Amino acid sequence: MVKIPDSHPRKKSLESRQKIVEGSDRGLLADSAMIAHGRGEAFDYLLGERTTESAGAATRESAARLRAANNPVISVNGNTVLLSGKRAVRLAAALGCPIEVNLYYRTPKRMSGLLSLLDEQRVSVLGEPEPPGFEGNWVESVRDVPLLGSSPDFRIDGLEGPRSLCTEEGIGRSDTILVPLEDGDRCEALVNLGKEVIVVDLNPLSRSAKMATVTIVDEVSRAFEGILAELLANPDRVATEWDNASSLRDSLAEISEFLREP
Amino acid sequence: MVKIPDSHPRKKSLESRQKIVEGSDRGLLADSAMIAHGRGEAFDYLLGERTTESAGAATRESAARLRAANNPVISVNGNTVLLSGKRAVRLAAALGCPIEVNLYYRTPKRMSGLLSLLDEQRVSVLGEPEPPGFEGNWVESVRDVPLLGSSPDFRIDGLEGPRSLCTEEGIGRSDTILVPLEDGDRCEALVNLGKEVIVVDLNPLSRSAKMATVTIVDEVSRAFEGILAELLANPDRVATEWDNASSLRDSLAEISEFLREP
Repeated sequence: MVKIPDSHPRKKSLESRQKIVEGSDRGLLADSAMIAHGRGEAFDYLLGERTTESAGAATRESAARLRAANNPVISVNGNTVLLSGKRAVRLAAALGCPIEVNLYYRTPKRMSGLLSLLDEQRVSVLGEPEPPGFEGNWVESVRDVPLLGSSPDFRIDGLEGPRSLCTEEGIGRSDTILVPLEDGDRCEALVNLGKEVIVVDLNPLSRSAKMATVTIVDEVSRAFEGILAELLANPDRVATEWDNASSLRDSLAEISEFLREP
Repeated sequence: MVKIPDSHPRKKSLESRQKIVEGSDRGLLADSAMIAHGRGEAFDYLLGERTTESAGAATRESAARLRAANNPVISVNGNTVLLSGKRAVRLAAALGCPIEVNLYYRTPKRMSGLLSLLDEQRVSVLGEPEPPGFEGNWVESVRDVPLLGSSPDFRIDGLEGPRSLCTEEGIGRSDTILVPLEDGDRCEALVNLGKEVIVVDLNPLSRSAKMATVTIVDEVSRAFEGILAELLANPDRVATEWDNASSLRDSLAEISEFLREP
């Protein structure tokens, strides 16, 4: 099973930074993506670069809700594909759900570049060991993960312009969406459509964090690994009445604690 | 006199971001500069995007120390020139000191680009009103600010490679250095040379913040404006015995407070 590391050394943070810089050099990211990554670095630093207790609880809740969903989908942007594309593929394979590339600043070049990269990442996953605990045909499950986004045929009500575009097969018909690094407006629009929105966001004060059904205040790689580990380890856990505001307050308290004794 | 605003709306933050993105597009910044800016955005957010009480005290102390110095110098990197080059020029004019461009990743293109931009910024400052309270010939003071860095003839002991390079006229012979957004190694090397190092850093936990003689935990534009305002308003203030560790603890407590009641 994929293990959630108890802590990450700074090496991990620097490797992630390098992935973002390289992705930017390859034209896969919007201008502001590196700045967004830097914000994430700072918040992760304040969390001690580890999955906190409250993030662990949100991760477990998210796994239960994704498993119970009729049509789950993982919505990814450029930073998520660069930092955690392979983890997204593994998680989608375990859930039997599609991955949809959905960009705030959509350009044909970035869309096709990110979808190609995801496809390469899927090939890499096929060359790696099956996660222990997975029941079913892993190779088939990985191969069958739909990689969506290139041909949008659906619009998210309440949003304007290119960022309202999505696919019906993915975000359109989904009931539960896992969206790392989401923007606040889109998160709000998705919630208003009656969808269950699970956000991964390192900033517990962000609008997405506050708007989401469940917010995992954690780095996206750790969150994806944590959800997969939970899916495989505790397949019978059921969703609870989740108090997201209370969970966010716990995250803030954890940061505050870290600031007192860094 | 330049007033320190009590608070900045998000507009200010977005304008700063735009300056960094444009500077990056023009090749004036290293890859990691946008990420560093994002980290700064996150920490500034946690300070409430305002000059906190402890930052105000550090600003006043810094003004007194810069005024008392025999050879003060303002050391700037790409982000500082883009965000606050004109403010650096005004402050250098008021102090009668040089500005030295000093880059972690030094390339001839970035050095000359940033020095040209500083020169343009100096021309802009000449077209703007003299700060009330300034005694002396403002136009001459602005014109006479040496813009250094293109011909390094000095090395900072304790550092290796291109980032050890500086000028004797600027950093080399200085006794007090104002260095916004400094890296920890260089801050330590400068302190080890017996220099008084005043750092502007939004992260109170950074190595620079901890190594410095005085750390102003504030956004660089607000810090520069604050120092200038203090220089002109209270020219007779003298330096105190400064407990920087205590000041940093106060900054952490202020962030912690903000997290409790954002």
